[in-house]
Amino acid sequence: MKRNAKVSTAVIRRLPRYYRHLCELQEAGVVRISSSALGKSMGLTASQIRQDLFCFGEFGQQGYGYKVDSLREEIGEILGINRGHTVVVLGTGNLGRAIIQNFKFSSNGFQLLAAFDVNPKVVGTTIAGVPVYHADQLEDFLARHTVSVGMLTVSISSAQGVCDRLVAAGVRGIWNFTNHELDIRQKDVVVESVHFSDSLLALSYMISQGEEDLPTEKEEKP
Amino acid sequence: MKRNAKVSTAVIRRLPRYYRHLCELQEAGVVRISSSALGKSMGLTASQIRQDLFCFGEFGQQGYGYKVDSLREEIGEILGINRGHTVVVLGTGNLGRAIIQNFKFSSNGFQLLAAFDVNPKVVGTTIAGVPVYHADQLEDFLARHTVSVGMLTVSISSAQGVCDRLVAAGVRGIWNFTNHELDIRQKDVVVESVHFSDSLLALSYMISQGEEDLPTEKEEKP
Repeated sequence: MKRNAKVSTAVIRRLPRYYRHLCELQEAGVVRISSSALGKSMGLTASQIRQDLFCFGEFGQQGYGYKVDSLREEIGEILGINRGHTVVVLGTGNLGRAIIQNFKFSSNGFQLLAAFDVNPKVVGTTIAGVPVYHADQLEDFLARHTVSVGMLTVSISSAQGVCDRLVAAGVRGIWNFTNHELDIRQKDVVVESVHFSDSLLALSYMISQGEEDLPTEKEEKP
Repeated sequence: MKRNAKVSTAVIRRLPRYYRHLCELQEAGVVRISSSALGKSMGLTASQIRQDLFCFGEFGQQGYGYKVDSLREEIGEILGINRGHTVVVLGTGNLGRAIIQNFKFSSNGFQLLAAFDVNPKVVGTTIAGVPVYHADQLEDFLARHTVSVGMLTVSISSAQGVCDRLVAAGVRGIWNFTNHELDIRQKDVVVESVHFSDSLLALSYMISQGEEDLPTEKEEKP
């Protein structure tokens, strides 16, 4: 599969959405879909869809649309879903616990190996089958297991310290829920932060604008 | 303040980030910042920053940079932070509870009025000072209070039903954490969904690509 070298952040951000929509289409029994129908369900134009997917090679056939299962598989491949990624959770407060219990890591290609905390009430227990170890055991665990990603749901004051320990032990990515802007020197370590405030402020903007000039994905330049 | 009519989704998505960075700069005592320094801290080019802010009128002065406090205030104004938005939370499981306890609604211009659940163990209690009412009281509450946004942290099976009730009662926006694609017919109601899986898959993509071709914001077309 041909892949064009430079892929913009905007396209990368849309890839998981494609994947999600294609999974839903497949579950609904849809076998083949045109770029215009796929676009409609995603709030994108057909030409933007064709441009996005062209970044990763030639999918689909002119006039026949895309085969849902193989496009889903190809995009999953691009996203790294079959690479055997693993994750550990740092911090099992309400947010950590909610994500451990409800988020389908395996559907996204990740195996959730363990969680870490310092609270004696949870250390030694399991959450949805996931063992919770004391944070002191983190380095030992990381030495014995290949861990791709550390998910940070610790307090904001502990965030940088825990992040430093994960990076020193060789994790490749940090999934950051702490709202702290992590300082990472290693260029090969990637941070993905979930900022709830960015999402709520975007909503605030949209409801403030009122009906007449609500933005749509269509206005985004491809 | 002049505002250009068509603002792309990409720019809107960056506005909350500008706001967040400017708040941090202000807290750190920074009075004035150049577009290149602001860009550096946000992973954007100076020209992209100038272009983004130009969508909303003329900020800053050639050669003098931006005044941090007034730019923060202007962007806050654009985002609707001073409009007296209000929010109620639907569902006080781990995720709802985590957000009620830890998320600073007021810093984002929202007043959190109440939470709703069906669980007899939590109905009648308060979470971080927020009263929890029975879901049956939702319509009555919405009739007596002006509520801008309903935050959905119910189970995926309850999501559409609760959303329909919120929309029928006149909320302007839905902050959706349920991973369900909500079906809303009213054009003046906005949905903002937080999809944890989109975020983890973007991280999966980036760690799968390895060091040599990690995407940066700079590659994004303005």
